[in-house]
Amino acid sequence: MSGFRAGVLTLYPEMFPGALGVSLAGRALERGDWSLEAVQIRDFATDKHRTVDDTPAGGGAGMVMRADILAKAIDAMAPADDPRPKLLMSPRGKPLTQARVRELAAGPGVMILCGRFEGVDQRVIEARALEEVSVGDFILSGGEPAALVLLDAVVRLLPGVMGNEVSGDEESFENGLLEHPHYTRPQEFEGRAIPEVLTSGNHGKIAAWRRAEAEKLTEERRPDLFSAYERPKTGKKAATKA
Amino acid sequence: MSGFRAGVLTLYPEMFPGALGVSLAGRALERGDWSLEAVQIRDFATDKHRTVDDTPAGGGAGMVMRADILAKAIDAMAPADDPRPKLLMSPRGKPLTQARVRELAAGPGVMILCGRFEGVDQRVIEARALEEVSVGDFILSGGEPAALVLLDAVVRLLPGVMGNEVSGDEESFENGLLEHPHYTRPQEFEGRAIPEVLTSGNHGKIAAWRRAEAEKLTEERRPDLFSAYERPKTGKKAATKA
Repeated sequence: MSGFRAGVLTLYPEMFPGALGVSLAGRALERGDWSLEAVQIRDFATDKHRTVDDTPAGGGAGMVMRADILAKAIDAMAPADDPRPKLLMSPRGKPLTQARVRELAAGPGVMILCGRFEGVDQRVIEARALEEVSVGDFILSGGEPAALVLLDAVVRLLPGVMGNEVSGDEESFENGLLEHPHYTRPQEFEGRAIPEVLTSGNHGKIAAWRRAEAEKLTEERRPDLFSAYERPKTGKKAATKA
Repeated sequence: MSGFRAGVLTLYPEMFPGALGVSLAGRALERGDWSLEAVQIRDFATDKHRTVDDTPAGGGAGMVMRADILAKAIDAMAPADDPRPKLLMSPRGKPLTQARVRELAAGPGVMILCGRFEGVDQRVIEARALEEVSVGDFILSGGEPAALVLLDAVVRLLPGVMGNEVSGDEESFENGLLEHPHYTRPQEFEGRAIPEVLTSGNHGKIAAWRRAEAEKLTEERRPDLFSAYERPKTGKKAATKA
């Protein structure tokens, strides 16, 4: 297996490949363009109940995943000389961006630890230099759905995966704007026509219209992105922090 | 079925329930605490090839999903008197927040249209008042992984789903801070000890330490959240816009 290698540490290996076993990602998985190994963290527990968590030091609700068990699981999947970035899906993490997705897709793969929200012992995060990554300001039942999202975003960028379905659309966050509206046949739908400019055949006007629509939409919905866009020299950098 | 009703329009119904059929969400699905209906959009096509898309008006890469086909699918799943919000998963959408997740969980359910990224004809978005929702500034192969994430976030908040596993942690985005670090046994891990304050038994000191750590982390990683947090009166509102 020479392609992109994804390794996932999880309490629910049966969630994988899930949606990644279907469609483009699934066909690429079958072809061997990438590989996916989902490993049960409980296999690294040391007691007969296969316990992986314990109560929080200092008290409080929920349980915390143990540093020693997780370290064993991480070391088994990705020893110190494994070149793959080691990620922890967590709402405390840095928000995932398309720029980071591209970096990951250009690399050898990823190791992803799926935490339970109540938390992972901070010491294993530090000792194994885990990169905390968030897919948004909301709380999931665990890191698994977030890992599926991250892998989907990465896998579609791997060589050969998109095939003829590739489009320039993935550039949209890199130019700092949300995408312009799309239209297709039929020409009229419930009394609504396709905007005239799009059927004019004037490519310059079409491009200008799309850019103006994208700017308007971005300004309305994402002032954070739009203010970065207005400073073209720093637009890309600022957008990756949004 | 009286619980929360999720309906998904997709080109890949086999992606559902996927990860939502496992663990807490899966058991709640079996109990009937919520229901999930995944419907193939192609069932509403009108030609023998079951075509749902066409080339973009004005030219460009990719294909656009047709307004007329999607309108039929939406109307079949959620007629005009259906009280459920109608969502379109899209990177152009408003970023999903925990506040919106809570609102959705308190409602009758959701209808989710999973678009392909190349796009959905703008006219059906307007004509059916679709709420465009984004799970982050990155591009997925389609709306399905995003829908799985959204439903996971919502379902865990439904009555009875979390059971004894519920914790106060889901409040973290509502107080405007990322979560403090967690620790649990063993007391020492690879030479790293649990911070002394956490084993002091002094609840006031523990709470103060956790708050200070949460503030420090938020300031470092999410200046956007932190600046909102510094204005407690508007902190909640600002956080939901982040």
